[in-house]
Amino acid sequence: MRNLNQDTITQAVLARLAETPDARVKALMTSLVQHLHAFARETRLTEAEWLRGMEFLTATGQKCSDTRQEFIFLSDVLGLSMLTVAMNNDKPQGCTEATVLGPFHVADARRYAHGADLANGAFGEPCVVRGRVLGLGGEPIAGAEIDVWQADAQGRYDVQYDAPEQPRARGILQSGADGSFDFRTIVAEAYPIPTDGPVGGLLALTRRHPWRPAHLHFRIEAAGYESLTTHVFREGDPYLDSDAVFGVRESLVADWVRQPDGVYALDFDFVLNPTTCRQP
Amino acid sequence: MRNLNQDTITQAVLARLAETPDARVKALMTSLVQHLHAFARETRLTEAEWLRGMEFLTATGQKCSDTRQEFIFLSDVLGLSMLTVAMNNDKPQGCTEATVLGPFHVADARRYAHGADLANGAFGEPCVVRGRVLGLGGEPIAGAEIDVWQADAQGRYDVQYDAPEQPRARGILQSGADGSFDFRTIVAEAYPIPTDGPVGGLLALTRRHPWRPAHLHFRIEAAGYESLTTHVFREGDPYLDSDAVFGVRESLVADWVRQPDGVYALDFDFVLNPTTCRQP
Repeated sequence: MRNLNQDTITQAVLARLAETPDARVKALMTSLVQHLHAFARETRLTEAEWLRGMEFLTATGQKCSDTRQEFIFLSDVLGLSMLTVAMNNDKPQGCTEATVLGPFHVADARRYAHGADLANGAFGEPCVVRGRVLGLGGEPIAGAEIDVWQADAQGRYDVQYDAPEQPRARGILQSGADGSFDFRTIVAEAYPIPTDGPVGGLLALTRRHPWRPAHLHFRIEAAGYESLTTHVFREGDPYLDSDAVFGVRESLVADWVRQPDGVYALDFDFVLNPTTCRQP
Repeated sequence: MRNLNQDTITQAVLARLAETPDARVKALMTSLVQHLHAFARETRLTEAEWLRGMEFLTATGQKCSDTRQEFIFLSDVLGLSMLTVAMNNDKPQGCTEATVLGPFHVADARRYAHGADLANGAFGEPCVVRGRVLGLGGEPIAGAEIDVWQADAQGRYDVQYDAPEQPRARGILQSGADGSFDFRTIVAEAYPIPTDGPVGGLLALTRRHPWRPAHLHFRIEAAGYESLTTHVFREGDPYLDSDAVFGVRESLVADWVRQPDGVYALDFDFVLNPTTCRQP
């Protein structure tokens, strides 16, 4: 194992994985090494470019904090997140489609009762969101956990503020006996993903805009059903066809309707996939 | 650009690179996206594995500091570093071969005169290192900058100690009029790359040892010649055939000879590639 050259080194690295006890780890690492090496070989990566790559990855990791996940942004803008979601959420016709999680989900958010105002002071136009959680046959799913989060009208999630006093525009509800839910919040608006880190630099270098169309995040969990991570996107948004993270599904686009009292209303039902109906 | 699926998303991401002004950036990003997606598709990466990958990359970035470069370790153990070196250092026969830079080089190290002791208190057996810097035709290269660094007998570089008072076992010398150099230091010993970070976890998961065979690092620069980044490896080391970072070249293995006075001696000449002789 001396004198490895560009033609022999890949096999030498793969051979070093021979003792890996977990077959899945071995398969993942084998594919990763092959593609990483193929990338370097195909581009004839220079030493300066390699070093720039190391610096970029380091800066990306160092930009991460409890409230900022720059590597998820990177995965998102490279389409890796949506590809992974697409591969793992091939649900039967009629189920609500999944989309990216994004980096702004916070575990164990505050719990709210029906009709509560999740905005909790977040800046934006008021709206009500109503709908039902259903099974594939239309049966109501009672007691589903509905985790909701969104940016405010300034395009920022609560965790992006320097010192958020308390969670804003996020919370967890439970569906009622008829599968229904109902809460108040603010109207979703389009926003740019943060561009003050390495991922912003990459977008600038490739002349890509950082905008995401207006959306409301949902993660819904219920016993006997696959967990659903998705958004509802706002009809009419100019970025629906160029989402910076490639997440838009036509079936997830809905109208926020302005009511006579000036409050907007969004009506949207979610259909979960029973765990027994998992597509192969 | 809605409803992208696992078959269409790669082309959509590549299309988003269309306006990239720098052709090289565009080529690198195109290849990167293709291989990243191919890796995910080929392994049918799960969402849990994707998240574990995000966590691994984040932890790798956060382990980096002014004196620790975990991403270079990662590149090293995956063979990417040595592949990049091999592709970019295809020198004419007779030139000293290159190997990996590693993460422990420090820019602007202290300068020493001929015969000085670079160890500066580093723990290990004393030795002298002597040699010449030559051109391909055997002509001496005067005034070459010779940057040297190494681990001590405890397997640690100075920057790995919690509070190094001053640089140890590293420094910069200049070759004399006859191309010669001559300094004192300590004998190189095998050492494990640090395993207290994410890369150590990866090595454990794949049952790989973290050892590097004993070596002395050199980076040599001289006007009119390609810069050379290399090691001299110690003959007889048990890890010469299983270097954790795949860096060993047979031509770089040399004897540290114990002299009658107990001081070891290493004699090694370096042959630089004139910049005009760059192989295509």
